[in-house]
Amino acid sequence: MHTLGDVQQEIDQLIKEEWQSNYWSPLSSLARLTEEVGELAREINHSYGEKPKKASEGAGDIATEMGDILFILASLANSTGVDLNAAFTGVMTKYRQRDTQRWESDGIPLVEEELPRKITHDKQQSENN
Amino acid sequence: MHTLGDVQQEIDQLIKEEWQSNYWSPLSSLARLTEEVGELAREINHSYGEKPKKASEGAGDIATEMGDILFILASLANSTGVDLNAAFTGVMTKYRQRDTQRWESDGIPLVEEELPRKITHDKQQSENN
Amino acid sequence: MHTLGDVQQEIDQLIKEEWQSNYWSPLSSLARLTEEVGELAREINHSYGEKPKKASEGAGDIATEMGDILFILASLANSTGVDLNAAFTGVMTKYRQRDTQRWESDGIPLVEEELPRKITHDKQQSENN
Amino acid sequence: MHTLGDVQQEIDQLIKEEWQSNYWSPLSSLARLTEEVGELAREINHSYGEKPKKASEGAGDIATEMGDILFILASLANSTGVDLNAAFTGVMTKYRQRDTQRWESDGIPLVEEELPRKITHDKQQSENN
Repeated sequence: MHTLGDVQQEIDQLIKEEWQSNYWSPLSSLARLTEEVGELAREINHSYGEKPKKASEGAGDIATEMGDILFILASLANSTGVDLNAAFTGVMTKYRQRDTQRWESDGIPLVEEELPRKITHDKQQSENN
Repeated sequence: MHTLGDVQQEIDQLIKEEWQSNYWSPLSSLARLTEEVGELAREINHSYGEKPKKASEGAGDIATEMGDILFILASLANSTGVDLNAAFTGVMTKYRQRDTQRWESDGIPLVEEELPRKITHDKQQSENN
Repeated sequence: MHTLGDVQQEIDQLIKEEWQSNYWSPLSSLARLTEEVGELAREINHSYGEKPKKASEGAGDIATEMGDILFILASLANSTGVDLNAAFTGVMTKYRQRDTQRWESDGIPLVEEELPRKITHDKQQSENN
Repeated sequence: MHTLGDVQQEIDQLIKEEWQSNYWSPLSSLARLTEEVGELAREINHSYGEKPKKASEGAGDIATEMGDILFILASLANSTGVDLNAAFTGVMTKYRQRDTQRWESDGIPLVEEELPRKITHDKQQSENN
């Protein structure tokens, strides 16, 4: 199982040692990330949305597009000096703090709509007490 | 150090157990991914491109935006049944095969323009022998 | 009412004459387009998806974000020599031809799923005759 | 020459009358917009960035991708009740006001870096008088 550090290191070794090359500029890598997210959007829209898929569209699937996104994200992290493991720890800390403090619904970034209502309700309860 | 499996598992535990909630629909998660990539674009453009940053824009930085992208990408992977570790292994295999077979420049997705020329040259050399 | 040509010309006049400046590089403009689409994604997710809006998020609305996208799209068109009116005529011709020729469902890019089924049915009918 | 109103009306007529269909949901249309911006990113990166183009990539070009973006943007505007002409007028007013007031560099969204410096300089001049 790859750690986030392995992901960054393997890509660095592939680009620098195996390809004996260099990273793209951050703006070019970002454009590539935009392209890969667009390809994921096509797959998600095909499987979960309303877009019919062209017969000419190949065997690309959701997992493949996510792998491509992870690759270019980690490449961009390498070229801009970002430690993805530290970044992930940071985002988890941010979301856990929001939960602990029972912030407003805006603090809950990934939940169904019923949860914010429930939290709002609980909050009103405690405010009433 | 988090493995890719840890990343997916921690997010699942946060959403389901700590927040006692559910994943968003894939189309909503994709919209959130689009939003987070847009925030990374703003930071990259500020640091490496031509966009001056508004004074009102906060302390958001490149690492934070990358953490947010990783979080929503892994959430979407969880809700669509994707194993990010397998997806990463797949993308590395794809790129290594391209290298091994010394495909044309179009097979080298992340290198400076001078490299494809060099590789093409090497390839012509070996074809001439 | 602005024509597409007016849109491109007004932006050119604003940037070159009023601001006495130049266009960004295409990669920087693209990063800005990515950022603006991300902001529209946030608004769409708030109004039609599952993302609760932060109280701190201002009065940004869907129309404003669409105006920003149109502005940067037309700026990028100006700096890369694209005539948006001709491009729009081209895309309409492409979609109308698909309709006329009653291509497979994959040729219908913007319709509900029931329509492709109906068209497929009609097509099978006519193939059977 | 199409006005922005023509663009919205022609698309509405194509979808409703010619295709006898309906608009996609806003989240599906947004995913399609993300996909089209990704295709433009690929073309821009090929022409102005560091991405070599695959031989298998067809005759897609920057103008075509911009036409596709305009089509899906106007479709999404139609389905969410947005008047693109009013939205464009709004964004031009916003940028012109920034110019008039000679705000800091953060108010100049589309200019080369030397301009903000010049404006800052002019501003200091006038403040010194």
